[in-house]
Amino acid sequence: MFIDRNNYRNARFLRTLGLYVGLIIVSSYSGVNLSEVELIPSEINEKSVKHAILLRDRALRKNEAFSLVESLTTQIGPRLAGTSAEARAREWAVKQLSNMGFDSVIVEPFQIEAWVRGREDAILTKPSGQRLAVTALGGSVSTPEAGLEAEVIVFKSLADLESVPDNSLQGKIVYVGHTMRPTQDGSSYGAFVPLRRLGPSIAATKGANGIVIRSIGTGYHRNPHTGQLTYAEGVRKIPAGALSNPDADQIERLWERNIPMRMRLVLVSQTIETAESGNVIAEIQGHEVPWELVVIGAHLDSWDLGTGAIDDGAGIGITMAAAKLILDGGRRPRRTIRLVLWGAEEQGIHGGKAYLERHRGELRNHILASESDFGAGFIWQLTSNVSSEGQPTIDLIGALLNPLGIVQGGKAVSVVGPDLHPMINEGLPSFSFRQDGTRYFDVHHTANDTLDKIEPKALDQNVAAYAVFAWLIAETTADFWKVTEPNK
Amino acid sequence: MFIDRNNYRNARFLRTLGLYVGLIIVSSYSGVNLSEVELIPSEINEKSVKHAILLRDRALRKNEAFSLVESLTTQIGPRLAGTSAEARAREWAVKQLSNMGFDSVIVEPFQIEAWVRGREDAILTKPSGQRLAVTALGGSVSTPEAGLEAEVIVFKSLADLESVPDNSLQGKIVYVGHTMRPTQDGSSYGAFVPLRRLGPSIAATKGANGIVIRSIGTGYHRNPHTGQLTYAEGVRKIPAGALSNPDADQIERLWERNIPMRMRLVLVSQTIETAESGNVIAEIQGHEVPWELVVIGAHLDSWDLGTGAIDDGAGIGITMAAAKLILDGGRRPRRTIRLVLWGAEEQGIHGGKAYLERHRGELRNHILASESDFGAGFIWQLTSNVSSEGQPTIDLIGALLNPLGIVQGGKAVSVVGPDLHPMINEGLPSFSFRQDGTRYFDVHHTANDTLDKIEPKALDQNVAAYAVFAWLIAETTADFWKVTEPNK
Repeated sequence: MFIDRNNYRNARFLRTLGLYVGLIIVSSYSGVNLSEVELIPSEINEKSVKHAILLRDRALRKNEAFSLVESLTTQIGPRLAGTSAEARAREWAVKQLSNMGFDSVIVEPFQIEAWVRGREDAILTKPSGQRLAVTALGGSVSTPEAGLEAEVIVFKSLADLESVPDNSLQGKIVYVGHTMRPTQDGSSYGAFVPLRRLGPSIAATKGANGIVIRSIGTGYHRNPHTGQLTYAEGVRKIPAGALSNPDADQIERLWERNIPMRMRLVLVSQTIETAESGNVIAEIQGHEVPWELVVIGAHLDSWDLGTGAIDDGAGIGITMAAAKLILDGGRRPRRTIRLVLWGAEEQGIHGGKAYLERHRGELRNHILASESDFGAGFIWQLTSNVSSEGQPTIDLIGALLNPLGIVQGGKAVSVVGPDLHPMINEGLPSFSFRQDGTRYFDVHHTANDTLDKIEPKALDQNVAAYAVFAWLIAETTADFWKVTEPNK
Repeated sequence: MFIDRNNYRNARFLRTLGLYVGLIIVSSYSGVNLSEVELIPSEINEKSVKHAILLRDRALRKNEAFSLVESLTTQIGPRLAGTSAEARAREWAVKQLSNMGFDSVIVEPFQIEAWVRGREDAILTKPSGQRLAVTALGGSVSTPEAGLEAEVIVFKSLADLESVPDNSLQGKIVYVGHTMRPTQDGSSYGAFVPLRRLGPSIAATKGANGIVIRSIGTGYHRNPHTGQLTYAEGVRKIPAGALSNPDADQIERLWERNIPMRMRLVLVSQTIETAESGNVIAEIQGHEVPWELVVIGAHLDSWDLGTGAIDDGAGIGITMAAAKLILDGGRRPRRTIRLVLWGAEEQGIHGGKAYLERHRGELRNHILASESDFGAGFIWQLTSNVSSEGQPTIDLIGALLNPLGIVQGGKAVSVVGPDLHPMINEGLPSFSFRQDGTRYFDVHHTANDTLDKIEPKALDQNVAAYAVFAWLIAETTADFWKVTEPNK
């Protein structure tokens, strides 16, 4: 179905003239109500739409998402990339998917440098011996076993830290705060996460021996928020941790009272140079153009503090259950539906990069993809950036999901799933279901990321959405490439 | 004001006849509105009531409660009984109270056996190496430094554990769950806390080498709930910890799947045989009967995991601010108002016991007492068990606090403040302000007990209530002893 530029122009031309076939359907038959869909584009047949509605409604009645998340988080628990726990998670996935009866289930292994957390502790030796709730940022170099002790200097923001002269904080431990608030679309995370990623190297250029940041999260429990840092090249690497929000408040209050602070910071960690990870891939093969691929999935690894329930056990459950629903639906799609359970996402999108490397030759066969990696909340919006030819199918998906509270948010060049970024950077069109993230960063990347935070009804809505998406993209003849704006 | 049995009967007789002087006041003067009070009992004069209203309204406008809790939890932090941190808290209190200008500020020291937490950890070595969030119960004997490793046997309740034969759990680690739900009056805590207090010795009689219980709390964070245990005499002492609720769920899910579990449990602790604690006492001396005492207060010690903000920094702030408000009110009460900041409550009501021992000779001079030790929520009810002679003054307090959402809950023989129990067991009448405890046990005794959990407006309401209580009990001539039902 590869179309060249001329075909694409023709398609757009036809659409501009409004000549694509629109069917106005108001009848209801076989228990499936099509009246909610005003226009079915010519690229897709009515039976396919009817089946999408059936899958959607079936998902809302019964699906396996919650029991899959429960099984994964209970029997495997935390799944840090490159560890034996992540390997057990792959075995778990292969076993589950094989039992479900997918056409093929394979693991594509790859190697990573793994980082493993050790003992961690932070004590304010001055003024009072208070113990603070701390956790190392992923990738942090280790402190000595006995820790690192130094005076604490407080900055309210990354900008404040950046404003002091280089080498002016020799030997200090730097604390840096921020003002993140809950946002539905998670934009506040994007706004403040540079503190975690870049703060350690900026502090090092200022002369600091260590850095603790306010957790890049919105929860008010004593469970600090981890996440990957990125050391700048050529800059001294210093140990870096995050304090829980109540502890960050405590530090800022002491600072405001002009009470001198010293901290003993213990962040022991270990790096394993060569560790194995892998992507687990299962397929429902297409009956007409099996080489054309629709990809859904989520990442199998998690941080080590919680059991990775909302990040990303939920996504695993949602997309596995959606694929299973299509598999059990009794109709084989035109295109192949490929479920990818990505490995080693948290520590650097290793799974997404390894996949692109291996599948670069067939990248153009990837029609559209969507990753579920924003927790377990209800989806409130879908966004996309696709060709004009593909737009009517997207609109159809929007119309079918509207009764589930999902609205179309228009063109968006950024996408939710990080494992898709490598492919999107190479031209893959973008599609995202946006889940409500207002409370996501209360527990994301903390020890509180456990099963009890998941509302099964919200998973059901997500399963319905992914099933409709995967099924219709696999059924339509439309191509979604050749977008007018570049993705990022 | 000691009255004998005959005087008491006379007082009751007079009240029964409805002959006490009731003033119906509907006028408003000097900016203070008395119209809300229909009846002022003969035992109290109108000016005193007017002043109570003034104190109440002033408390709602401005008081020092929140800034006191902030200072205590920030500058001292956790205040485990018998430690240098608790000693610093006494110094802090003496300094604050002296600066406020109380007539006398003293420390009454006493000695306790102190218990100090060390390293703690719990790992499910089978099936998967998952780490669980655990904390030792207060008073637990220590495991070896390397921990204790054994098979885990699960019981859903204390009754289930009790039902198995003695010595049938040789060498096991026992897990015991429960079904506590949030309750406004905290009654669910009372119902399930026997698992913590008695569970360890019951498990020992069944042969177990260790016990972990579901946290006696309602929070769904990974911060387990500590609290004192009581080893039964003559029973082998085994190490005892609590798991957070998400971890307790995890254990129960694995058990339901028939997956064998082994746990390595590290609960290192230390007992210091002789440690110093103390009660801090400040007074506003009465001008007419200074030997008669009205006591308000809260406990200064806290558990070590959080900063003791809601338990019991809030009570410290509330009662200190209420006393300060009376002190600054420009009128000296008839009776002495004594503020007692109790020491070492958490590990066995040591402060309350030491106080009774020292003040037993003047117990009958204690007119009425109230301790604030149920968090930082709004007061919704007041309960009491006092003499008929005292009842009109209680009703007056109820009437004055009704506009603040506080209703009278009738006679109650149980009281909120544990430090008062020793005196109440000896005949002191009871009085309690009941705070909303629906969410109290989400954070109580956990690392999450930090300042951010406190709503300053709720503290203001509490301060108003304690100021009105202390002032009016100190102003009335009524006696509250000689109750018709025994307190407990």
